[in-house]
Amino acid sequence: MKIELGAQNCLYPMPTTHVGATVEGRPNFLTIAHVGIMDLGSVSLGMAKAHYTNAGIKESGTFSINLPSTEMVQETDYCGLVSGRRVDKAELFSVFYGNLKTAPMINECPINMECKLKKVVDFPKHDIFIGEIVATYAEEAVLTDGVVDYSKVQPFFFTMPDKGYWNLGERFAQAWSVGKALAKK
Amino acid sequence: MKIELGAQNCLYPMPTTHVGATVEGRPNFLTIAHVGIMDLGSVSLGMAKAHYTNAGIKESGTFSINLPSTEMVQETDYCGLVSGRRVDKAELFSVFYGNLKTAPMINECPINMECKLKKVVDFPKHDIFIGEIVATYAEEAVLTDGVVDYSKVQPFFFTMPDKGYWNLGERFAQAWSVGKALAKK
Repeated sequence: MKIELGAQNCLYPMPTTHVGATVEGRPNFLTIAHVGIMDLGSVSLGMAKAHYTNAGIKESGTFSINLPSTEMVQETDYCGLVSGRRVDKAELFSVFYGNLKTAPMINECPINMECKLKKVVDFPKHDIFIGEIVATYAEEAVLTDGVVDYSKVQPFFFTMPDKGYWNLGERFAQAWSVGKALAKK
Repeated sequence: MKIELGAQNCLYPMPTTHVGATVEGRPNFLTIAHVGIMDLGSVSLGMAKAHYTNAGIKESGTFSINLPSTEMVQETDYCGLVSGRRVDKAELFSVFYGNLKTAPMINECPINMECKLKKVVDFPKHDIFIGEIVATYAEEAVLTDGVVDYSKVQPFFFTMPDKGYWNLGERFAQAWSVGKALAKK
């Protein structure tokens, strides 16, 4: 039986990320799981306007998305609890820069993407930042035959209804393939 | 050591969904993992313009997002392999409607969200549909004390680099909590 829950966002679990930006001249990181994929080259961030980081993304026109692994859960949660206005969160990590020079990335995160801001969609209390990926970096240890292997990345997910962090299970089927059997019926 | 992979989208794993819409007067479902969260009330879909479903979403101004469970992987993959232009994919499911009347939903999916189209962001080869959630339905069996329990939903994820489907692991930490220990240091 279906239960109506009201207008509740249940599009979870979503990957937990660190968004990096230069704010007031310094690297800052913020935990964001309200992310999205627009097309193969573009991603989105849904960020409450109250965040310290938003002005930095608008000013530099750049940001990074960093995927932490489960062993970084404490640091990741912390970066969502405290504001860069008061705390230097970059001190927690080894920071590096790529081509854009103003999108700080976290060396400890196995996957990093540098993005150029392409568009801001204005929501009542949120800036939706749409960015084009310009370069991606992966820790060599998370690649299998040169391809990103998420069983090695060990990303984790956020669920809003119960405020949980979840790890990744197993790869149990091949996409664009397992459904072919139905097409033959 | 970091390896540069070029401008590769690695913002995965993303939840695999069935998007429902009325197209040419009939219910149709499409598999989409390029989804996003804008704010608590709004979601996005990144859908290639070539899809049959896009015109239906624009015409009715509504769509649904349905979360399949792992046991539906074959049907889900199939709905991404074949076009509604040629195949009646709604035949695979028991379809129901809610308040909007034109956003078909899949009864077999444990979570369903009805959405009103609020904005289309035009990308070169994709329509980015931004929708407001107007009602959410959950199978009673996936709730724990009235809250959606993703260990019961058993959603699954898509990864582009290796074209894989992955199941959900365990809830291993409490969000907005596990990081508090660092704040005290």
